[in-house]
Amino acid sequence: MKRTLGTCYYPEHWPEQMWQADAARMVDTGLTWVRIGEFAWSRLEPTPGDLQFDWLDRAIDVLGAAGLKVILGTPTATPPKWVVDKHPDMLAVDANGHPRKFGSRRHYCFSHQGYRDECRRIVTLLAERYGANPHIAAWQTDNEYGCHDTTVSYSDAACREFRNWLAQKYQSPDALNRAWGNVFWSMEYTDFDQIDLPNLTVTEANPSHHLDFLRFSSDQVVSFNRLQTDILRKHTDAPLIHNYMGRVLDFDHFDVGADLDIASWDSYPIGFLSDRLEATDDHKTRFLRQGDPDMQAFHHDLYRAVGRGRWWIMEQQLGPVNWAPYNPAPLPVMARLWAWEAFAHGSEAVCYFRWRQAPFAQEQMHAGLLRPDNEPAPALAEARQVADEIETLPDTGTATADVALIFDYPSAWAWQVQPQGADFDYFRLTFAFYKALRVNGLNIDILPSTTADLSTYKLVLAPGILSLPDALITALTQFDGTAILGPRTNTKTPNLSIPTPLGPNIPCLDARITHTESIPPSADIPLENGRMVHWFEHLEGAADVALKTKTGAAAMVRNSGLHYLAGWPDPDTLTDIIKTACAREGISTHTLTDGLRLRNTATHRFIFNYAPDAAKWGDTDIPAAGVHWEPLV
Amino acid sequence: MKRTLGTCYYPEHWPEQMWQADAARMVDTGLTWVRIGEFAWSRLEPTPGDLQFDWLDRAIDVLGAAGLKVILGTPTATPPKWVVDKHPDMLAVDANGHPRKFGSRRHYCFSHQGYRDECRRIVTLLAERYGANPHIAAWQTDNEYGCHDTTVSYSDAACREFRNWLAQKYQSPDALNRAWGNVFWSMEYTDFDQIDLPNLTVTEANPSHHLDFLRFSSDQVVSFNRLQTDILRKHTDAPLIHNYMGRVLDFDHFDVGADLDIASWDSYPIGFLSDRLEATDDHKTRFLRQGDPDMQAFHHDLYRAVGRGRWWIMEQQLGPVNWAPYNPAPLPVMARLWAWEAFAHGSEAVCYFRWRQAPFAQEQMHAGLLRPDNEPAPALAEARQVADEIETLPDTGTATADVALIFDYPSAWAWQVQPQGADFDYFRLTFAFYKALRVNGLNIDILPSTTADLSTYKLVLAPGILSLPDALITALTQFDGTAILGPRTNTKTPNLSIPTPLGPNIPCLDARITHTESIPPSADIPLENGRMVHWFEHLEGAADVALKTKTGAAAMVRNSGLHYLAGWPDPDTLTDIIKTACAREGISTHTLTDGLRLRNTATHRFIFNYAPDAAKWGDTDIPAAGVHWEPLV
Amino acid sequence: MKRTLGTCYYPEHWPEQMWQADAARMVDTGLTWVRIGEFAWSRLEPTPGDLQFDWLDRAIDVLGAAGLKVILGTPTATPPKWVVDKHPDMLAVDANGHPRKFGSRRHYCFSHQGYRDECRRIVTLLAERYGANPHIAAWQTDNEYGCHDTTVSYSDAACREFRNWLAQKYQSPDALNRAWGNVFWSMEYTDFDQIDLPNLTVTEANPSHHLDFLRFSSDQVVSFNRLQTDILRKHTDAPLIHNYMGRVLDFDHFDVGADLDIASWDSYPIGFLSDRLEATDDHKTRFLRQGDPDMQAFHHDLYRAVGRGRWWIMEQQLGPVNWAPYNPAPLPVMARLWAWEAFAHGSEAVCYFRWRQAPFAQEQMHAGLLRPDNEPAPALAEARQVADEIETLPDTGTATADVALIFDYPSAWAWQVQPQGADFDYFRLTFAFYKALRVNGLNIDILPSTTADLSTYKLVLAPGILSLPDALITALTQFDGTAILGPRTNTKTPNLSIPTPLGPNIPCLDARITHTESIPPSADIPLENGRMVHWFEHLEGAADVALKTKTGAAAMVRNSGLHYLAGWPDPDTLTDIIKTACAREGISTHTLTDGLRLRNTATHRFIFNYAPDAAKWGDTDIPAAGVHWEPLV
Repeated sequence: MKRTLGTCYYPEHWPEQMWQADAARMVDTGLTWVRIGEFAWSRLEPTPGDLQFDWLDRAIDVLGAAGLKVILGTPTATPPKWVVDKHPDMLAVDANGHPRKFGSRRHYCFSHQGYRDECRRIVTLLAERYGANPHIAAWQTDNEYGCHDTTVSYSDAACREFRNWLAQKYQSPDALNRAWGNVFWSMEYTDFDQIDLPNLTVTEANPSHHLDFLRFSSDQVVSFNRLQTDILRKHTDAPLIHNYMGRVLDFDHFDVGADLDIASWDSYPIGFLSDRLEATDDHKTRFLRQGDPDMQAFHHDLYRAVGRGRWWIMEQQLGPVNWAPYNPAPLPVMARLWAWEAFAHGSEAVCYFRWRQAPFAQEQMHAGLLRPDNEPAPALAEARQVADEIETLPDTGTATADVALIFDYPSAWAWQVQPQGADFDYFRLTFAFYKALRVNGLNIDILPSTTADLSTYKLVLAPGILSLPDALITALTQFDGTAILGPRTNTKTPNLSIPTPLGPNIPCLDARITHTESIPPSADIPLENGRMVHWFEHLEGAADVALKTKTGAAAMVRNSGLHYLAGWPDPDTLTDIIKTACAREGISTHTLTDGLRLRNTATHRFIFNYAPDAAKWGDTDIPAAGVHWEPLV
Repeated sequence: MKRTLGTCYYPEHWPEQMWQADAARMVDTGLTWVRIGEFAWSRLEPTPGDLQFDWLDRAIDVLGAAGLKVILGTPTATPPKWVVDKHPDMLAVDANGHPRKFGSRRHYCFSHQGYRDECRRIVTLLAERYGANPHIAAWQTDNEYGCHDTTVSYSDAACREFRNWLAQKYQSPDALNRAWGNVFWSMEYTDFDQIDLPNLTVTEANPSHHLDFLRFSSDQVVSFNRLQTDILRKHTDAPLIHNYMGRVLDFDHFDVGADLDIASWDSYPIGFLSDRLEATDDHKTRFLRQGDPDMQAFHHDLYRAVGRGRWWIMEQQLGPVNWAPYNPAPLPVMARLWAWEAFAHGSEAVCYFRWRQAPFAQEQMHAGLLRPDNEPAPALAEARQVADEIETLPDTGTATADVALIFDYPSAWAWQVQPQGADFDYFRLTFAFYKALRVNGLNIDILPSTTADLSTYKLVLAPGILSLPDALITALTQFDGTAILGPRTNTKTPNLSIPTPLGPNIPCLDARITHTESIPPSADIPLENGRMVHWFEHLEGAADVALKTKTGAAAMVRNSGLHYLAGWPDPDTLTDIIKTACAREGISTHTLTDGLRLRNTATHRFIFNYAPDAAKWGDTDIPAAGVHWEPLV
Repeated sequence: MKRTLGTCYYPEHWPEQMWQADAARMVDTGLTWVRIGEFAWSRLEPTPGDLQFDWLDRAIDVLGAAGLKVILGTPTATPPKWVVDKHPDMLAVDANGHPRKFGSRRHYCFSHQGYRDECRRIVTLLAERYGANPHIAAWQTDNEYGCHDTTVSYSDAACREFRNWLAQKYQSPDALNRAWGNVFWSMEYTDFDQIDLPNLTVTEANPSHHLDFLRFSSDQVVSFNRLQTDILRKHTDAPLIHNYMGRVLDFDHFDVGADLDIASWDSYPIGFLSDRLEATDDHKTRFLRQGDPDMQAFHHDLYRAVGRGRWWIMEQQLGPVNWAPYNPAPLPVMARLWAWEAFAHGSEAVCYFRWRQAPFAQEQMHAGLLRPDNEPAPALAEARQVADEIETLPDTGTATADVALIFDYPSAWAWQVQPQGADFDYFRLTFAFYKALRVNGLNIDILPSTTADLSTYKLVLAPGILSLPDALITALTQFDGTAILGPRTNTKTPNLSIPTPLGPNIPCLDARITHTESIPPSADIPLENGRMVHWFEHLEGAADVALKTKTGAAAMVRNSGLHYLAGWPDPDTLTDIIKTACAREGISTHTLTDGLRLRNTATHRFIFNYAPDAAKWGDTDIPAAGVHWEPLV
């Protein structure tokens, strides 16, 4: 597979006379792809029914003629004001009951049927006109579902659809009452139309109610996206893509991805470090201009799974952005490192966002490959360098992994609903496990909880899974490698109740959680070696004890290779647990310190230096932000 | 008096075939009491008028037949959805003007007449049916008034009733204008119907307006409760009880308690430490699994006063709960310590919450005496141990105290309205005084500000009392022990204005506060010995100076035994002040460190070790969470 | 010019029989001015049309007869309840869409035409009745515009007027779309009536939209004030004044001031230190009872510019206030220091707020010259002392300054809209520059960005100016002293877009900002000498480099005396930069440490000691809170 580069371009932002030169310069930079159109509705249809597609025809012609492949976006993330004025109740409503107004983007509720009709109409028009256009080599649906907390809406439209969804799921109010335990606090319903959305309750809503609402909200994203893919499939054979965000977990990307051909994501390493990562000030300062060393790889591996092997970077940070609390510039050549790391994890394409910095509106402080005055920004040369390097290293085969990590979106929602401790967060937990694997220098596959075959792996981790599906339980009990489940895995029913027998309830493992503790950052649970933080579960049962607390309680139990870990180990403890498991399975590990990270493909080993200082890999010096590759021996 | 144990049980949560075994097991555990029914409205009346009391008849029969005494709760804290749909404006409204929706509990506004009618009806039905039932040995009204910030509602119903309440109180708008000082900022009214609730004002509302609204809100709880007790009294001779919460101060418990026979409270030591106590991280870590060493005793003493001597624990924490920021498990045998401490403070009964952990809904992570799988949780054996110990130590007589602390709910509201410094909080201040008494090993009585006779005490403290009633001033001036008033005591009129002469305005004490300072945590006022924090008042007048600042200003003045303390001493300073006062009065003190605490009854001294390590009491080793008792000599 | 003292008095708060004694005592204290009436609407017109001006006639007579000069306030900051009931939609609306209710003050939306009519009526009545009254020596319009965040309102009235304002400014929706860059995210409008206020958007609104709304909101204050001055001018020749607040930047005080004769401000040094200043705990503790040593001087110099040379203190703190998070008492004689510092900066009058502490309502804990019991508070003697000292030092001439600092309100709005880094705030930046000038012992003039003549200055600073007007650019390029522009200066168009050529875009300076970094407090940009914090801009161009980072990048460039500073220096670095610039220009500096500050008038040097300890000035000991003056030699 040949790696490719691309960029995101907004012909509607620039005078038409610039298009040709832009296209030529893109080609000259070594770019293959150009994404356009995803926010252009007000130019395609300035007033109801006044369709203005000519300029887009010409833009596609110019870009295509220059030799670029076009990704065409559907413009449904930014309905113009007239759409909102036509459907005033299409606005999403926040948890306080306030409609979220027009004036930025993503101002729609996924459940609004009138807005769905408008989307159906504009996507059909686009698909009919461009479905067979030879320059259109891919389609993007909408843009960054879920960004700006837009998955969940407390609108009347959402309430109506939620009641229908519940009626479909439970068929009778009694069944729902039983499933949710509504006898508790007299919350029983006699009619689906009595059920409200779970916001603004006096104290927390019933967790089953809340979780069902989050499941429903995810399903609305899935059906909204499918509405578009159903139309596009009728008119095009080009691959369909959506561009996901980082650490957005409030819809099930596996479900959305099932209707698409390729998963892509928008990777903003420095913005994410500042904006959405639990870390010490020291860590954030050290990686200020590089991003967290594992955040990108995690999402690469996650979205590779979502894309069933096919994935891209649709937007790659290349300079300072505008939206994080702090917005420093990347180290020189970071934009090269990020691209190569994506390729090493199997990305087919890396598109830099954006071609030229816009001098106006919300993202005017967001760097592009070109500056607003059309001069090159530093990253343009880095993109050119990557393009050249791709020529010298066109393919390094498909990577494999000995290690798998199970990832499950509904678990994120369940623990959001019921954290039981202020610091319990599913992403944070799972990412801690991922980091410990990475520090051991391992290749990792992320798998959905629907996985039924683990036979190609030697080590499988499944922390924090709400409820293991039967097929996965079967796979785990038949697995002859090492599996480490927990904490909190399989401790609940899918409806967020406590099952009997008590969790983890794995057939071959005699262990039950008698009670659970969440603890503040100032405290911990000391182990014989190491310590647990945030979370600890007390176990009973005859299973072998693999790890003990200082007071002799079981902290991890096992039956042969199948382990249950009854707490949240601190980073060093978790690294040790994984190193031990790898040793047991004959997986070789490399203990990496600080910002050095590895990724093996079929033919090569890539080493990335995320640190702000040079580091040693064997005899090789790798500079700050450096990438080194060597053939695997 | 024989101490008794009990539990809280929800027969409606479990199959009827389990009831008999549950009842037998309760008896076998040594329990006397079982509370039921307080959240069961949707099972008693699933739809309007469809009364279903048979199951409750049978549950009472089964429990009573096993030998248990039943406390029957009125179910008014959880009106079913149909009640809310019938009275959509019965929902309480938050300070932002948002109705607080159905879906958890306590979703009603105390001022709504339609909802009061519904309560009148259901309570009458219950009282008629069970008032003479021999198994019903007590009644509980509603559940945890005020929990989840539910005393205050900014609804239209509240506004209507508030205007009536003001018209009753002031008779004319002019009188109200004068009382509130509405000439200030042109806030004068010419009609009671012009008066709004004091939320969403541009800057703070008139403090007298705000305080009157809080007084009104408290009165609404009182009349709501009285509505129920008036009905129950007609049909039953059993004692009437309400279960109060910890550190809920927004209604006057003395007023509610006046209509009841017994005060009870719901004691969650570990939840409260995490959720509602100002303390250092070190303190919170040290007492993580035990709770603050004084928080329970404070409420025991407070609610003993509210119950005019008769009080219970209606809900006793026994394992991890679900609702605090962090929810660790108690140390082993803490559930025993907490019970014995309650008994030592005079509790007639301790009911563990709850019998069996529910596997569903909001409290599924809240431990019970039994686990969801019906196996014993650790506390079951501790309850059995307490039951056994009660047999060996059935009665230790009624305690007396040399020391009294005045507690006054309206003062809490007044300083909430007008803290004048970010750290001034009435509970925090009063609890600091209570702690300093406890560290000196003293028995304490808490008294309402309506107290008119102090003759049985040697030392009386009255910090932070908005306005001393005449009877209490008389009692204080006639008191021949040591009284320490202040800071802030009697510095305002009951309407929250500044009186002339200036406070503290005690007839026999020539002292006036000329001005007041609030100071940030980074600063203090050094004394000759010790220091003041948070708050300092400058005094003038001829009273003797009992304590000075380093710069020579008066920090405490006195006339013989009557003292006014003009600031908030830090813990060590306050401990010294009290030790000195005790020495003056010949009260013996025991300086306790860390987690050791004392309580004397008529015949015995109890020593409790709240520390996580063993401690010495004389020659006796008391283990962590240990209780020791010895006859008084 | 003779300095004068005054106070703020509320005759309507006190029995009429006290007025005469109060007036005599004011005169006896040495006061010249008394401000009255600004909150008295409910006493002037208790019900619609029921005018009650007699009491005010008598109050003015009593005060005037005693020899006092009266400042009469228009009462429009506190419309009575009947006005609000007549115009229920006149209430300002907060960013969440909640109307801000009656019950305190400033409860009106500047855009409401009905309320403007009410103001027109009451101001006309007052102007007609008192315009020629010989005792009325000045008028105050309204009170503290903008206080309690009241400039901006999201009401329907504001929306209506904003659309009109936009239509006036842009004439066509297309012109607006181009100016704002609405093609971005399909935000284009086809009608001005489609445009909403920029609150509650999904993510940030278009910054040009937001900035225009803030410009509009400022203009509404200006026209609201002009409505009053237009009326008053017809009936009086007395000077018109408004009392501004500290660190309120959300309307353009230069614009409001253009319609007035004198600028005044309300100086609360201790409240402002606690409430509205970024500083370390150490700094806040050291200056706890004095206020920040530069905060007052900054506003003195700012409002001297706003008043085109004529300015007052309308309200001077004199004891503890009620509204800050912490409210300590001033050091003894601070009320004297603050007055003398104001005089040294050119104030014509200092009015202490307030005459007597009110025992009721919102400000009952706010000290006055008299206590609520009519006894003198400590500051009364300090006021008397100042009055005496004025006699001995009646005039010290008009100060001049070598140094000017450009201050521009729209820049504050622009960077509020687009901080690009969590710590970037225009006031904070500008105040850091001001502080560095003060630490060098310099006299400073603050100038508006409309300044076109810099010829009387030797050093000019212009940090953070959104967009330099042409006249100022011309003045800067012709300036033969040292000018230091930046960071961020002239980097945007007035509409908040990025210009081409890129900023700073100064004709004679070959320098362009290629990209910008904001950085967290844990990081910095080391310079060869010093460091940059919060903000750094990367420059290209041929201009001489005057300051370098440790890695050799330009941190300040220049062409002869014209400098562009490409970052936010930390305090020491900035002090050095200014010292160097002064040396270049032959301006003598005095390096002051801690709390000592200087101000030279034409004839004298004043030295103020803000520290809590005595300090040395040459051979002179200046006690804590001391003021020293000496003739200039």
